[in-house]
Amino acid sequence: MYLDEFWNACDVELDGDDEVQQAVRFGLFHILQAGARGEARPIPAKGLTGPGYDGHAFWDTETFVLPLLTCTLPPAAASALRWRHATLPAARARAQQLELNGASFPWRTINGEESSGYWPASTAAFHVNADIADAVVRYVGMTGDIDFEVEIGLELLVETARLWRSLGHFDANRQFRIDGVTGPDEYSGLADNNVYTNLMAQQNLLAAVSAALRHPERAQSFGVSLEELRDWRTAAESMCIPFDERLGVHQQSEDFTSHQEWDFASTPPESYPLLLHAPYFQLYRKQVIKQPDLVLAMHLRGDAFTAEQKARNFDYYERLTVRDSSLSDGTEAVIAAEVGQLDLAFDYLVESALLDLHDLEHNTRDGVHIAALAGAWIALVDGFGGMRNRGDDLCFSPRLPRQLERLCFKLRYRGRILEVTVLPQTAIYALLEGGPVQLSHHGEPFVLSATQAVTRAIPPVPVRPRPKQPPGREPFHRNL
Amino acid sequence: MYLDEFWNACDVELDGDDEVQQAVRFGLFHILQAGARGEARPIPAKGLTGPGYDGHAFWDTETFVLPLLTCTLPPAAASALRWRHATLPAARARAQQLELNGASFPWRTINGEESSGYWPASTAAFHVNADIADAVVRYVGMTGDIDFEVEIGLELLVETARLWRSLGHFDANRQFRIDGVTGPDEYSGLADNNVYTNLMAQQNLLAAVSAALRHPERAQSFGVSLEELRDWRTAAESMCIPFDERLGVHQQSEDFTSHQEWDFASTPPESYPLLLHAPYFQLYRKQVIKQPDLVLAMHLRGDAFTAEQKARNFDYYERLTVRDSSLSDGTEAVIAAEVGQLDLAFDYLVESALLDLHDLEHNTRDGVHIAALAGAWIALVDGFGGMRNRGDDLCFSPRLPRQLERLCFKLRYRGRILEVTVLPQTAIYALLEGGPVQLSHHGEPFVLSATQAVTRAIPPVPVRPRPKQPPGREPFHRNL
Repeated sequence: MYLDEFWNACDVELDGDDEVQQAVRFGLFHILQAGARGEARPIPAKGLTGPGYDGHAFWDTETFVLPLLTCTLPPAAASALRWRHATLPAARARAQQLELNGASFPWRTINGEESSGYWPASTAAFHVNADIADAVVRYVGMTGDIDFEVEIGLELLVETARLWRSLGHFDANRQFRIDGVTGPDEYSGLADNNVYTNLMAQQNLLAAVSAALRHPERAQSFGVSLEELRDWRTAAESMCIPFDERLGVHQQSEDFTSHQEWDFASTPPESYPLLLHAPYFQLYRKQVIKQPDLVLAMHLRGDAFTAEQKARNFDYYERLTVRDSSLSDGTEAVIAAEVGQLDLAFDYLVESALLDLHDLEHNTRDGVHIAALAGAWIALVDGFGGMRNRGDDLCFSPRLPRQLERLCFKLRYRGRILEVTVLPQTAIYALLEGGPVQLSHHGEPFVLSATQAVTRAIPPVPVRPRPKQPPGREPFHRNL
Repeated sequence: MYLDEFWNACDVELDGDDEVQQAVRFGLFHILQAGARGEARPIPAKGLTGPGYDGHAFWDTETFVLPLLTCTLPPAAASALRWRHATLPAARARAQQLELNGASFPWRTINGEESSGYWPASTAAFHVNADIADAVVRYVGMTGDIDFEVEIGLELLVETARLWRSLGHFDANRQFRIDGVTGPDEYSGLADNNVYTNLMAQQNLLAAVSAALRHPERAQSFGVSLEELRDWRTAAESMCIPFDERLGVHQQSEDFTSHQEWDFASTPPESYPLLLHAPYFQLYRKQVIKQPDLVLAMHLRGDAFTAEQKARNFDYYERLTVRDSSLSDGTEAVIAAEVGQLDLAFDYLVESALLDLHDLEHNTRDGVHIAALAGAWIALVDGFGGMRNRGDDLCFSPRLPRQLERLCFKLRYRGRILEVTVLPQTAIYALLEGGPVQLSHHGEPFVLSATQAVTRAIPPVPVRPRPKQPPGREPFHRNL
């Protein structure tokens, strides 16, 4: 009964690859298990499936698992964020200890206290705070759950906005800089103006302003003043976003593109994952990327990049990304699909979906990679479905890879159940439950009501050469 | 007898401050003790006086202690460098482990192996290698000991030059960058193009080229080719030296001057030393300096800066330097004296000289600060004596602070004993032992022979406002 309701509202069907079909459902089931009965406990990196990572929760939860739960089992997403909210006292104490304002959430934790001992790769990875804010924004946007926003969301947004304001500063050119932090890529550390961090902080600051203006009394109860809102907005609008004019690409962090490139040609297959074979000193100082960082920024803050920048950036960073983290594939698939690299996107989908079932990292005995399993869903829904949710807009830009004949996924959206079917030439939108809603298809708005499905043609894919990965780091290839 | 010979050739006399006079001799004696009987063991940070730093040796030895021993007890300096040379196998193995060429000497050690576990503040502080090269160059320059150069020095220069060549790379503008390293300032870490590091590496590379050309057969026995020499020279000539055009000052490291300044006004006296009270995360990312870094570069590579740059840089960095390290005072004194801030230079001399006798850091029970005691000598000889040795030139630019009536120091120089007497208006150079020699006084060359002392007028000091230290971090003031 409970499971019927779950599958009826969130199943993903794909024709053309039974193995991936099975894997995606395997992932949905394990994420359901991990998320359904949170009961004020965090969703750990291995879900309920094994002892890996000592049961700790990371940013993975907010950035990879909650997007799925928000669309499929919203109360589980709310519950996970309520747990974060419950740890605010520890996060405030941590911020104070670090001589910062607001709240600083831990890199890895069970009870809300920081459990990592190596600060350059944990404390300095402040983006976890913007990731939590992102999950709040997404949850409220997808559910319209205003009670949650008032009770839980606003305070999380306010306290993380305060953190960012105290973490950054205005330089002589009145740019707002965030120096000496670590972005998602764990092969870099302690860099200035990490684009992912700065764009996510920018969204965090602006979301806090909007939410405070929607709920002024509640905001005042947290001591928020108009001056503070103005200050957050100014910081957000002045955010430093490093761009390399010569190469025409964004810099993962300031000066990143001036660093030496990793000597991939001389790195044999057995030297991967690099973290087990190369000195971190060398990893940090060179252009070599463990997991999407700038590419993840293009997914979660796609509005901050032009289509041309996305294509150029993806080419540039793809060449440097070794995917030594299982958090890579879903994101790679999404941006590959967005820039029209559907074959490559499909390969990343497969790798993400089969990571544990094929035991590609030889550690499934420690538990499944919950975030990677969520990544396979993200590859399908945000990748081939092209779904993006920004505030009040829910948009789709679907495109089917040649390996699939049909993709169909269902979503919960503001009390409704939507169904999106992607075929090679057309997409069909249907409203299974709830009242009429405005959506968009490849940038064209339309209204969907329960009486009639809407069919739209899929525009052709721009043809570009397939981006290169570092030698030997191409995505996993099945022998079918 | 032994001590008579030592004092006859190296005593420092000063009229006008009996306490500092006593302290300087106290320092000379302890450094003599620490250095005289090295017997193939390193000179540790506490000399032979206590258990502090577990008996480990650091870069302090080459950069602060050996300049003194080179001028006063050259065989002890040679012995210390012979110990470094004896650890080349470990340093080569370390370089290989770090995927670098040549030799990488340890940050702290007894037997030549790295004993520090926190790599951002040890492994990444590669400048120790250029500091060793600097000590070699200075020793050979001051002694003319060609046998040492052939037997010991050349190999140290070659192996450290190889390290630098592999540590840096040419960027798209053909600048040679050294990214992701830690300079002398321990309140910064993992920065790009630290000016101290890059200038010292530049000297290291060029010194290796010169020494290899002087001893081509020996160099060939180390596998040095003409191509390698050309490559070292190109790297040295292309060295990236970050300068902030807007402020008109050098950047300690790239982008340093864009970072937020430490909030000194809100830092109470009991929060020093900052390392015991502030998160390292905050120290690393802000403009706050533990010990001279760019200012040390201006001492050891003064040729790379104009007089105007030195004054501006000193003003700028003095405001940010909290001197939480006892390695600070001697260097501060030297550059203060060079830019004409004689009162300030004298205060730093006093602090350096009395550090242990007044137990200013409350830890003299762990042993004396050998490098700080050497720093007092450096403050007198390189500071008020204005001594610099670059290759074949030995130069003096003496200037007496108003607190002293007379400063007289003796030096060993290429088999000679020199005596320099600094009076308020004049300096007197005498040759106590050995043949005629060319020296210079405030940039004017002259020949000194045993038959007659040379007296020269001291040019007036430029009057500038006294640079400010962070509030509460002014140098120690005695109640006389």
